[in-house]
Order: sequence, then C-alpha cells, then structure tokens
Amino acid sequence: MNYRIDNLQYCNWSREVFQINREANLDAVHVTIVYHEDYKEFLKKIEEWDIHFKKNEDLIFQGKNYKDIERAKLEKKTAIFFGFQNCSPIEDDINLIEKVYEKGCRFMQLTYNNQSLLATGCYEKNDSGVTNFGKEAIKEMNRIGIVIDMSHSAEKSTLDAIDISEKPIAITHANPLFWHNAIRNKSTELLKTLSDSNGMLGLSLYSHHLKDGKNCKLESFCEMTARTADIMGVKNIGIGSDLCLNQPDSVVEWMRNGTWTKKKNFGEGSKKKPGFPKQPDWFIDARGFENLEKGLSKVGFDKLEINGILGNNWFNFYKGIN
Amino acid sequence: MNYRIDNLQYCNWSREVFQINREANLDAVHVTIVYHEDYKEFLKKIEEWDIHFKKNEDLIFQGKNYKDIERAKLEKKTAIFFGFQNCSPIEDDINLIEKVYEKGCRFMQLTYNNQSLLATGCYEKNDSGVTNFGKEAIKEMNRIGIVIDMSHSAEKSTLDAIDISEKPIAITHANPLFWHNAIRNKSTELLKTLSDSNGMLGLSLYSHHLKDGKNCKLESFCEMTARTADIMGVKNIGIGSDLCLNQPDSVVEWMRNGTWTKKKNFGEGSKKKPGFPKQPDWFIDARGFENLEKGLSKVGFDKLEINGILGNNWFNFYKGIN
Repeated sequence: MNYRIDNLQYCNWSREVFQINREANLDAVHVTIVYHEDYKEFLKKIEEWDIHFKKNEDLIFQGKNYKDIERAKLEKKTAIFFGFQNCSPIEDDINLIEKVYEKGCRFMQLTYNNQSLLATGCYEKNDSGVTNFGKEAIKEMNRIGIVIDMSHSAEKSTLDAIDISEKPIAITHANPLFWHNAIRNKSTELLKTLSDSNGMLGLSLYSHHLKDGKNCKLESFCEMTARTADIMGVKNIGIGSDLCLNQPDSVVEWMRNGTWTKKKNFGEGSKKKPGFPKQPDWFIDARGFENLEKGLSKVGFDKLEINGILGNNWFNFYKGIN
Repeated sequence: MNYRIDNLQYCNWSREVFQINREANLDAVHVTIVYHEDYKEFLKKIEEWDIHFKKNEDLIFQGKNYKDIERAKLEKKTAIFFGFQNCSPIEDDINLIEKVYEKGCRFMQLTYNNQSLLATGCYEKNDSGVTNFGKEAIKEMNRIGIVIDMSHSAEKSTLDAIDISEKPIAITHANPLFWHNAIRNKSTELLKTLSDSNGMLGLSLYSHHLKDGKNCKLESFCEMTARTADIMGVKNIGIGSDLCLNQPDSVVEWMRNGTWTKKKNFGEGSKKKPGFPKQPDWFIDARGFENLEKGLSKVGFDKLEINGILGNNWFNFYKGIN
C-alpha cells in the first residue's frame, strides 16, 4: 500500500482546503494548531477542530496513530494529526505534556524562532542547546509519544535533542543549507546526524526555503532531493510542505512577532516583503504532489523511492513511534 | 537622614514578621512576591498583599518609589516594594511589563535558576546570554522603571544585561565568589563590571551563600564586605538578606522544582539536606542588622560607610530609578 502524506501544513482551514487535500490524495496531514498559544488557548483550538471534524466528516477525521492513516486510505479521507510549532502550550509545566497528548498532540517543536524554555530557536544569536527543563521535557515526550520537532531550532539545540531523545526526532519542514542559504535550512552535518539516528526530514515547499524563492524550478527542487537522499538515505526524507493556504498576511506577522516585541520583526521576510511569499507555480497547493511525482522520476528516483518520499517514509516513521 | 533597607526577603509573611522588621528599624524591604507564578497567579498575590496592608497598616504600606522610604522613616513604618524572582508573570507578552509595574512590581529577575524566555539561569550548563525577547524586555523595563535583577542568572547573561540596560541593574541577593564558591555567588570580574555601571550588589545572609554556611562568623562576613568594597566601591554595596523566615521546607522544594521536572532537584541543597538551611546565630532575622553595624565598624568602616551599606546606598539607587 502506498500513502501520500504532507507532514506540515498551516492553512486557513476550510472545507475548500480539506477538498484540495483530498484531490491531492493526501491520506494524512500533520497540521499546526498552535504557534504561541498557551494551554488554555490550545484548548480553544481543539474546540475549533472539533467543529471542522463534524462539518467535514466526509473528508477528514482526527488521526491518533499510524492505523488512522491506513483507515484514511480505505475510507478515502485525510487523517489530521495535530502538532505545535512552539512549546508554549505546555507553559512551564511538565505535566501538561501528557495533557496535550490526550487531546491529540503528536508533534511539538521545542522552539519556534526564539529561545524557549526548552531550547534555542534558529533566530537567536547564541545557542545554548537543550535546557534543564528541555531535558526533562524530551524524556516525557519520549515516554508519552510526542515527536520532537526541531524545524525552527538552532543547530546545537537540534544536535542535543537528537542525542538526548531515545526516539528518532523529526525536522518536519526545512530544506538543506547546501541548496539554499536560509537561516531555517539545515547543515549537511546536522542532516547526517539526523538520519543516522533514524530521524526524518520533511522537505519544505515554502518559498523562503527554496532556491530562487517562488521562481524555484521543479527540476532544481528534485535534484536537491536526490542530493539530500545521497546524504541522508532515501528513507529518511518526506514532504512537509509548510503550505499556508488562504492565510492573511496578519497571520505571518503574528507568527513572527507573537507578543515578544514592540518593534516589528520580519523574520524570513523583509520590510519590503513583509507578507506570505507566493508559492512556486508547480506547488500552489497539495495537488502539486503530482508534479513532485513526475519531477522525482525525471531525476532518477524509482517508483518505490518516490512513494517513500511522498508518504511511505512518514508512514513508517509514524509506525515507529506508537 | 539614614535609612535601613533589606533589599530581599521572602518570608512567610505575618504580623510577627512585620513586627520583627520594625524592631530592626527597616524603613524599606524589597519582598519577593512570585517565583514561578504566571500573570493570573501574580494578581492573586497582589490580593493577598492588599490584605496584609489592611491588617497591618500600623506597620507597613506599599512602596512605589524612594519618597515612600522617606515617608516610612517619618511614620516609623516599613515600605514594602514588590519584586519577582522569575519573569514568569510577564509570560511571553512584553505588554505585561507595564501591567505588573502598575500593580507595584519594581524589581524583576530575568531568570531564576533555569533558562527563561529572557536569559540563562545560573544552574544551566550553557549560557547563551540575553535572548531576543530579553533585549526587548530590558528596553521596556528601562522605559517603565522596573529594575533588572540578575541574582540567579548566569554570568554571560548578567554581563549582557549590564551592557544592554540603559539604567543600572542590581544583583539584589548574592555574595562574591572569591569568598565562598557557590554557583549563586558572583565573580570579581562581574562585580567590577556591575559597579562600573553604577549597579548594586545586595549581600546575602542565606547560609548557602556564606563561607562555612550557618557557622559563618560575623567577622568573616564583614571582612568579605570590606574586600568587596575594595573591588566595587563602598557605595555599590547593600544588604539583600534573602531571609526566608518561617517558611516550611515545602516552599524551598517548590522554589527549586516548580513544575519543570518530575525527578527532584535539590538546587543549593542536597538529598541529605533538602530543606531551608539554618541562619547564622548573628543573623537569625533582620534584627541582625545591629550585629552587622558593629561588625562592619570592627573591620574599619566609618559611620558614613556603614550607613551606606545598611541602607543609604539602596536608598540612592531607588532615587536614581524613579
């Protein structure tokens, strides 16, 4: 059986988006449900998702483990797995890790761009690695079954997390630094360490992570995938598109600024280009998986490898964690 | 006019404690009102203090600026200034700095022992300094008038804070490392940088910070004070006793562990000595200021210098910040 999985989306959720994901034959999507929210605000998000699930039960349901991906395939629906882009919902309380798991959280970034209580984000000047609380949180996440996601974390913190975690970790949405020099992209050394520990990289389709931005060529992306497979092995690579369909620019402003600064921070953007960037024309939305399939074939991947990259590798990773 | 100020106490507050502080002729005390509390829990503490002020209006009132210390002297009362030992009440929101000021907060540690969102605590393995959010928070604290307190912070973070802050900062309760090698005590280099920037050190009477612990001799403490004055200048030294009168041991356990770990952390204590340490017999409570006065005289300080150390230096510092 072959699965199609997009292991990171943060769309302005609507029936239209769920339909597009179905048209793309996605059996599972890992969706970001919080950025900077605290525990109470996280519970509000859960209520919002309860309504999505009720109103769109013909298209989606909540995923809890890999068996829900198998079920989604059979029922021609998309299993929705919850994840956090920051650890803010657990606040300063290790006991909340079990609580957020009970509500469905399966991935949690130890940091967004800034320092968190657990580790250092990639936009900080200095990186002190995983903190005292971070070490305890990783142990608890391992015990409970929440995947450690280091997509937005700084390098030493990520290497620390790989070292401390007894289970493989994930970088759900980022690209290699050798291809495009962006603060959010990852060094070859880090990618090697990640794959040596059976961790997964979800390749991102977000323009700020792409060579030539929105003008990035499909061929270039697929060649980069081939070179990344040389480094990491083809089984440790998947897709984490970072699609932010239909989000207003106020959302990216909030993602970057939260409530931590009074002056505006532009993150990956700039004063001139403060909003969400445009997508490359071959990946406007998840239906672009079809283009990826063709493009990956052209650079020499075989069917087994392509199905791995487009979903089966993530499926196997999910299988390993539950 | 001479003032007596203890610039750090965290007692189990009661009429008895306020009476003792009056017997000690304290015109002002900086009291810790939160350790790990969030904003809502901080508001609860404010309610508790409102009751203390009502029930004990013949002994104490809330201090807002240095004029309240002058008033306290005249009225033979103690002005109570609020402070935080961690930045948890501002959560991840820079706007809360103004809110906590409005309720009376005048000192805030950027960290307790662990990493915070603002800086690194002295019990972390690595110290990445003041964070992105920390830089913004310092600017805002400067603007609003909350003193940056780095008593429990790591060294680079403290040096960063001194460098970034446009106003003098404080280490309200710690001792020099040259005298007693404890994680919480401060290096000579740091103390020099602190005094060069007109910052204040509050010498601590907490046994874990004292040479020979509870058996520390008054003479030794006063000689250390003289050597510290050689390094920092006598005008940058005061007292921050760190008195924790009548607190049950469950409180020190909570101070150290908060909710960040499932296994027990003993902080400055140990498995064998997990509780609050005993005070040296010459400083059981604030009435020990009288012993300090005699002791400081014996090691050669003159009256002006002694009155500076026992309160006037802090008074001048308060005067500078408002």
